Amino acid sequence: MNDKTAKDIENEVSDWWQTDIIDMEPGKIHYAGYPIEDLIGNISFPTMIWLMTRGELPTADQAKLLEAALVAAVDHGPQAPSIAIARMAATCGVGLNNAMASAVNVLGDVHGGAGEQAVTLYHDISKHMGAGATLRDAVASGLDHQVAEHGKHIPGFGHRFHPVDPRAPRLLELVRQASSHGYVSGQFGQIASAIEDELLARKGKRIPMNIDGATAVIYAELGFAPELARGLFCLSRSVGILAHAWEQTQQGGRNKGPIPRRLIWNYNGPERRDVPDTAKSGFDNH
Amino acid sequence: MNDKTAKDIENEVSDWWQTDIIDMEPGKIHYAGYPIEDLIGNISFPTMIWLMTRGELPTADQAKLLEAALVAAVDHGPQAPSIAIARMAATCGVGLNNAMASAVNVLGDVHGGAGEQAVTLYHDISKHMGAGATLRDAVASGLDHQVAEHGKHIPGFGHRFHPVDPRAPRLLELVRQASSHGYVSGQFGQIASAIEDELLARKGKRIPMNIDGATAVIYAELGFAPELARGLFCLSRSVGILAHAWEQTQQGGRNKGPIPRRLIWNYNGPERRDVPDTAKSGFDNH
Amino acid sequence: MNDKTAKDIENEVSDWWQTDIIDMEPGKIHYAGYPIEDLIGNISFPTMIWLMTRGELPTADQAKLLEAALVAAVDHGPQAPSIAIARMAATCGVGLNNAMASAVNVLGDVHGGAGEQAVTLYHDISKHMGAGATLRDAVASGLDHQVAEHGKHIPGFGHRFHPVDPRAPRLLELVRQASSHGYVSGQFGQIASAIEDELLARKGKRIPMNIDGATAVIYAELGFAPELARGLFCLSRSVGILAHAWEQTQQGGRNKGPIPRRLIWNYNGPERRDVPDTAKSGFDNH
Amino acid sequence: MNDKTAKDIENEVSDWWQTDIIDMEPGKIHYAGYPIEDLIGNISFPTMIWLMTRGELPTADQAKLLEAALVAAVDHGPQAPSIAIARMAATCGVGLNNAMASAVNVLGDVHGGAGEQAVTLYHDISKHMGAGATLRDAVASGLDHQVAEHGKHIPGFGHRFHPVDPRAPRLLELVRQASSHGYVSGQFGQIASAIEDELLARKGKRIPMNIDGATAVIYAELGFAPELARGLFCLSRSVGILAHAWEQTQQGGRNKGPIPRRLIWNYNGPERRDVPDTAKSGFDNH
Repeated sequence: MNDKTAKDIENEVSDWWQTDIIDMEPGKIHYAGYPIEDLIGNISFPTMIWLMTRGELPTADQAKLLEAALVAAVDHGPQAPSIAIARMAATCGVGLNNAMASAVNVLGDVHGGAGEQAVTLYHDISKHMGAGATLRDAVASGLDHQVAEHGKHIPGFGHRFHPVDPRAPRLLELVRQASSHGYVSGQFGQIASAIEDELLARKGKRIPMNIDGATAVIYAELGFAPELARGLFCLSRSVGILAHAWEQTQQGGRNKGPIPRRLIWNYNGPERRDVPDTAKSGFDNH
Repeated sequence: MNDKTAKDIENEVSDWWQTDIIDMEPGKIHYAGYPIEDLIGNISFPTMIWLMTRGELPTADQAKLLEAALVAAVDHGPQAPSIAIARMAATCGVGLNNAMASAVNVLGDVHGGAGEQAVTLYHDISKHMGAGATLRDAVASGLDHQVAEHGKHIPGFGHRFHPVDPRAPRLLELVRQASSHGYVSGQFGQIASAIEDELLARKGKRIPMNIDGATAVIYAELGFAPELARGLFCLSRSVGILAHAWEQTQQGGRNKGPIPRRLIWNYNGPERRDVPDTAKSGFDNH
Repeated sequence: MNDKTAKDIENEVSDWWQTDIIDMEPGKIHYAGYPIEDLIGNISFPTMIWLMTRGELPTADQAKLLEAALVAAVDHGPQAPSIAIARMAATCGVGLNNAMASAVNVLGDVHGGAGEQAVTLYHDISKHMGAGATLRDAVASGLDHQVAEHGKHIPGFGHRFHPVDPRAPRLLELVRQASSHGYVSGQFGQIASAIEDELLARKGKRIPMNIDGATAVIYAELGFAPELARGLFCLSRSVGILAHAWEQTQQGGRNKGPIPRRLIWNYNGPERRDVPDTAKSGFDNH
Repeated sequence: MNDKTAKDIENEVSDWWQTDIIDMEPGKIHYAGYPIEDLIGNISFPTMIWLMTRGELPTADQAKLLEAALVAAVDHGPQAPSIAIARMAATCGVGLNNAMASAVNVLGDVHGGAGEQAVTLYHDISKHMGAGATLRDAVASGLDHQVAEHGKHIPGFGHRFHPVDPRAPRLLELVRQASSHGYVSGQFGQIASAIEDELLARKGKRIPMNIDGATAVIYAELGFAPELARGLFCLSRSVGILAHAWEQTQQGGRNKGPIPRRLIWNYNGPERRDVPDTAKSGFDNH
């Protein structure tokens, strides 16, 4: 320690928070080298999302495909836990930022992770193809591995509510357009379609791609890491979360519960009983 | 800056995080001067809560009164937004810590702030008494001020569900016992009872003290700041939040919504319509 | 209750979660009447944000102004508590959704509320003008009221770090362009500029508009409610939060603290002391 | 659906939120059959925590051991991310409940999961013993399995900062006392000690048990499921989180960053550059 100067220590502290994302001095804000005043009004919000998470600017065409995915996943209604939580939170005397936080927080492995898991699956299949497997064999291997590791449920395929998820075919159509223009390779769209075919062959019925499977195609085509599929979904769903929290704020209510107020849960536990003396240690007992 | 030594800078950085709460060196953990190994097994959990938030140890008797308040507020069932949120979160693929966070987060001004507001009201009335007013006059002034500033609802009194909140009289009984032993002054218990009387006189019907009003009496008697009334409530309610998140985990389920799955919300917005060209700027339009 | 049918009860439950935002049936997802498949690929992400929070589609031109504000506020670096929290959270073994939640959560009155407060101030001044006051008099009245209610700090003006916030003049330039095309009225841009002038006159030095003041101009011009200024800021800042959480994930680290690991906070509390017998109630004492 | 009555539907809705924890009617609150007014003042807070998470009351002696674990883990100072987050959040204009939520949220697999992982390890070793293995062989098998599945780091053993964690030996001493009184079996204390011995033999140096390993012994002795080890740690650490958030509130500050204000992070990304035309799609470009 003895030889270090004050400047060395300051630098050590500054290095603890080092980043490649933002460069700042008084009057100067650059993101990955681009002055903020050059970005504002010149690039789209999805382009900015790309720059921040990737460190480089996409083309406007690539960003449009990302934009389609972001538009697609904003909301699935008050039966989704994230949306219900946002609405209930909005009646509890907290700010919209807090309502959004409680809601985004639950976009976990089950509620928000299918896109991430689907990108991982697509990457695995792509790796098999890179090693020489045919599309069909690669898909079979990928699905076998997925089922062995994580069970029968294939992330990104099938929907409890929608026989056909109306968002998926539209997104895939855009991927095909982008591929025909050469903005993306189209490989992951083919992989996802081949998964549908293989699932049909294996199960004897169509398990169509859902929103997570379709946005995962886009994220994979655009080169996003699997983890970012979840992160981007969080950005998208935050829109619906904000919208519902705000609508609930305008509807009013205090401490909104999950079911109409006059109804109460059913209790299935033990009947009324006395506290045994062995458990007592309280105020009266000293 | 030039004259500062490396040690000065280190000290400046360490001072940025200065605290009176915890003193640590390798092998040493002291809280407000007390070695952790002297506290473990010797003091109760409520005593530790007191030490951490106040900087001094209470007597075991004082801590027992705090304990009663902490025991009282753990849970009010799945119709409470905090509890419903914890249960829904537990089905979304996040940890118990995350489920607890989303739930504790909503204990805001409406869902978790009544205790804090009640302590503030009691303090205001106590200040009037300190300035020479009678209990009755002080209560009248305090209530007038409360209504003028915050509206008709008096925090800590009245309950939507319970005609008499079974927790309140029991807690007040303990305050009276503690007061008779000289552990607390009893002043805030008297203030709260006088509020009940004044509300009866003003409204022509009994608006009995609820859990928030009663725990606020205890927190005020024990000298906690109003803000800590909310903080302590958060600690107490975290127990119920954890219990329900855990029960839901064991019950299972994925993405539990607020109402049975086959039901869906009612939609009251506009009928199906076409996207106008003026709004378009998307993928197809370039 | 007796006359209600099963259908009535189902409807009561569905009505508890009624919304104007989303209409869903199996295979159908409409937002405010627009089928999702018509929106995907046709409208921008900011347009979708507008639709969700306002219930109507903006023109593409209006959405571009909103887009500029969303691009402008994504990040202010690791010294911002929200960004530091996101990075630390990312090292604690939670998902990106959780890291985002802990961070967005702190965009409260101080860290995320200035835009909301600035819109409120602009609205107040606009109201004075609507009642016949000149711009200058309306600004003076609005500022007097602001100072009287909330203290000397004027939300949206002045910056601790930037002598001139590079984001503000660029955003104001876009407002002027939009106004010259007739997309917005330009009234709130004029109000904000007049506030700068009045602050200069009052304080004898320039207190230039900052990012919050400038985005508030845009939100006010576009007709967003003050609360949504905070909500939209949360959406924008979520991008930087995600980017930093993700960069930290890639940098690695476990339980990242706020300062380099070898440094520790300075402790200023009481010296080591013994636990008094009066506080004891623990394991050894029974 | 046709044959269902209104009552059937109400019951279906109530069943969606069924629980064994709390039974409520107007004026009645029972937890697992115990009236709240019988619990208040008669049982300790740790006893209540046990009742809520387990459904049955412990003896007061069992609860005292749980209490020791809860007392032990409240705080590890501002270098812990959870504590730093709580303090920063408290300066951002949010409530104590929000500050607590952002902080508890990060007690994930890395920051809050070691106790849960240690209980799982102990259970695994105990299972080997139940199948006839000696303590030593069971420990060896358990460690081998742990290392194979999760890597070299053994949860609950070793500490970055403390050569000997002062909390661990004290907690183990209490377990031995409880075991000598017959309150617990003592089996998990023996397992944990045998792990220390085996690690010494394998690594040639002592890797002493830490707070997580020691509290895990207590939780396992008392029959808590592994997941609840994390939940209980969250309850305990919430105390320190609240204490630090409250101390910071009193210290004041606005938007507290991680390092002193005049310092800034080091930026390592690209130099200043121009936005390429291919990325542009913004306001000016139409």
